[in-house]
Amino acid sequence: MKETTKIVLDAMGGDNAPVEIIKGAIEAVNKREDIEIILTGKEDIINQELAGYTYNKDQISVVNTSEVIETAEPPVMAIRKKKDSSIVVGLKMVKKGEADAFVSAGSSGAVLAGGQLLVGRVKGVERPPLAPLIPTEKGFSLLIDCGANVDARPSHLVQFAKMGSIYMENVIGVKNPKVAIVNIGAEEEKGNALVKETFPLLKECEDINFIGSIEAREIPHGQADVIVCEAFVGNVILKLYEGVGGVMVSMIKKGLMTTLRSKIGALLIKPALKETMKSFDASEYGGAPLLGLEGLVVKTHGSSKAKEVCNSILQCVTFKEQKINDQIRECFQKDVQ
Amino acid sequence: MKETTKIVLDAMGGDNAPVEIIKGAIEAVNKREDIEIILTGKEDIINQELAGYTYNKDQISVVNTSEVIETAEPPVMAIRKKKDSSIVVGLKMVKKGEADAFVSAGSSGAVLAGGQLLVGRVKGVERPPLAPLIPTEKGFSLLIDCGANVDARPSHLVQFAKMGSIYMENVIGVKNPKVAIVNIGAEEEKGNALVKETFPLLKECEDINFIGSIEAREIPHGQADVIVCEAFVGNVILKLYEGVGGVMVSMIKKGLMTTLRSKIGALLIKPALKETMKSFDASEYGGAPLLGLEGLVVKTHGSSKAKEVCNSILQCVTFKEQKINDQIRECFQKDVQ
Repeated sequence: MKETTKIVLDAMGGDNAPVEIIKGAIEAVNKREDIEIILTGKEDIINQELAGYTYNKDQISVVNTSEVIETAEPPVMAIRKKKDSSIVVGLKMVKKGEADAFVSAGSSGAVLAGGQLLVGRVKGVERPPLAPLIPTEKGFSLLIDCGANVDARPSHLVQFAKMGSIYMENVIGVKNPKVAIVNIGAEEEKGNALVKETFPLLKECEDINFIGSIEAREIPHGQADVIVCEAFVGNVILKLYEGVGGVMVSMIKKGLMTTLRSKIGALLIKPALKETMKSFDASEYGGAPLLGLEGLVVKTHGSSKAKEVCNSILQCVTFKEQKINDQIRECFQKDVQ
Repeated sequence: MKETTKIVLDAMGGDNAPVEIIKGAIEAVNKREDIEIILTGKEDIINQELAGYTYNKDQISVVNTSEVIETAEPPVMAIRKKKDSSIVVGLKMVKKGEADAFVSAGSSGAVLAGGQLLVGRVKGVERPPLAPLIPTEKGFSLLIDCGANVDARPSHLVQFAKMGSIYMENVIGVKNPKVAIVNIGAEEEKGNALVKETFPLLKECEDINFIGSIEAREIPHGQADVIVCEAFVGNVILKLYEGVGGVMVSMIKKGLMTTLRSKIGALLIKPALKETMKSFDASEYGGAPLLGLEGLVVKTHGSSKAKEVCNSILQCVTFKEQKINDQIRECFQKDVQ
């Protein structure tokens, strides 16, 4: 018999909470019998929402929390003060081993800070990176780190490369994932101080399949599976991806409405265009894991709808089944010795 | 009578040299009588190319150079060794005042290094930034710096903001241009060490219209006219812009070929789509100036075609007419005092 994966889901986090969060939970339990979801948040609101669905009651339970952390709150302060919030209670359950994973669409800052403060790092991990999947022409790549801790050191980037490789190989199923470091040229001597110091360390690293530098232009072509960078740069890449994509689609749509001819054409291409856009849509791939913690913490987009929430939950099952944390622990203990 | 603007054009630089470079020069002189173009490069090849066109012979002359700097060569070394190259000879003419501007689609590294080494900086300018225009939903913004000198200091970024504002206001005609610094959140306390140190300096700066931080997601929406960042980040933004745009267009095109219905639709929308793509095409706006030098140096895309070369040449006229270098000199002398 398969082991059950227990996932705490923050019912109060995100722009579409609690409606889409709970809908996503229902979709997930209706897809798999081997998961159990614990919703944290205001019990009465959650129960009212749950009442509208048909599902196996054994798979979803509720833990009442009285406080909610808002996006604008200073993260560390919020984690320390709001002890009865959906985020703090959820993360503590992971810490205590009462759950395998915590999934939230709420305040990124609070989830990242809380993950580190409450769940804690795997021994040897210097800094836990946030690693979203970004769409490419060939499928998708892991962009690591996009977290809140900027100004990384070379040793951090090397750890990101290792953790990212483990994740891509075991959770996503990419054999011997290609690792590249974001740079402003292909040659080894190019780059800022951080990249120049990190490059030879990655080259020496035996645990990864390092292919060298990647220029930002090549990222959307899917030239590498694991894209290593410092969090400030990662954040810029992630958000510009969304920005350029969004603006282009809206400009194309507006452009198609300019003539009668193009309007008719627009009607005809709509289904094909929708399908194309879907393959370039980050929400297809679930949330971003915060790697290197003593438990799994997944941050999904603030604008997540049910599908992304459901995909994020399902991702947690693979993460547990593949014993990712054990693999990270093993990899870093080898380094510590 | 209007003064003539003298522009040295590197006939040997770029993927499409000399054909498209020379075609661009012809287009420019056929548009304006008040420009004079000096082509540097292999005389026989250039003259052979020129022979195919009708134009006012007084407006185009050729200076023979025997060497060519290749893109892969280490820039500083190439500038020092290849004294009879189209780039070195052209830049020296600007230095000596024999020309107002130098335009090249050749090796970015060599043009940037040569600009600093041979033309020299305006007094008070610590680092000359490369500042391309990037397309946005509203028009375009100046992205400053995208050059080769990474790991900038806060004082560099403040200078970039000032020079960028002068350029946007006087060459592009944006009144009181909005200046923003690239950051990973909107709040002042967000950012890496460089951004946190620079933010208050920009806030205090009276010469510019500083509107605060800009997240990468907002850049394509055109929220700011002058986007200030360190060169590594600028380079990532510039190249990712090209990459995401290119991949999306190619995916959409491929997607439209999947069904008969979408193929017919594709035919109907083609003109409108082309028009939309044009407004999102960087080559419409000419090349990127290297600001803060004792003369104008403009780098155009390596893949430049005649249109971009022509636009880059025309940009130089406005740069001269508006006395941008005098304005930069004045602005920085005020600071030095």
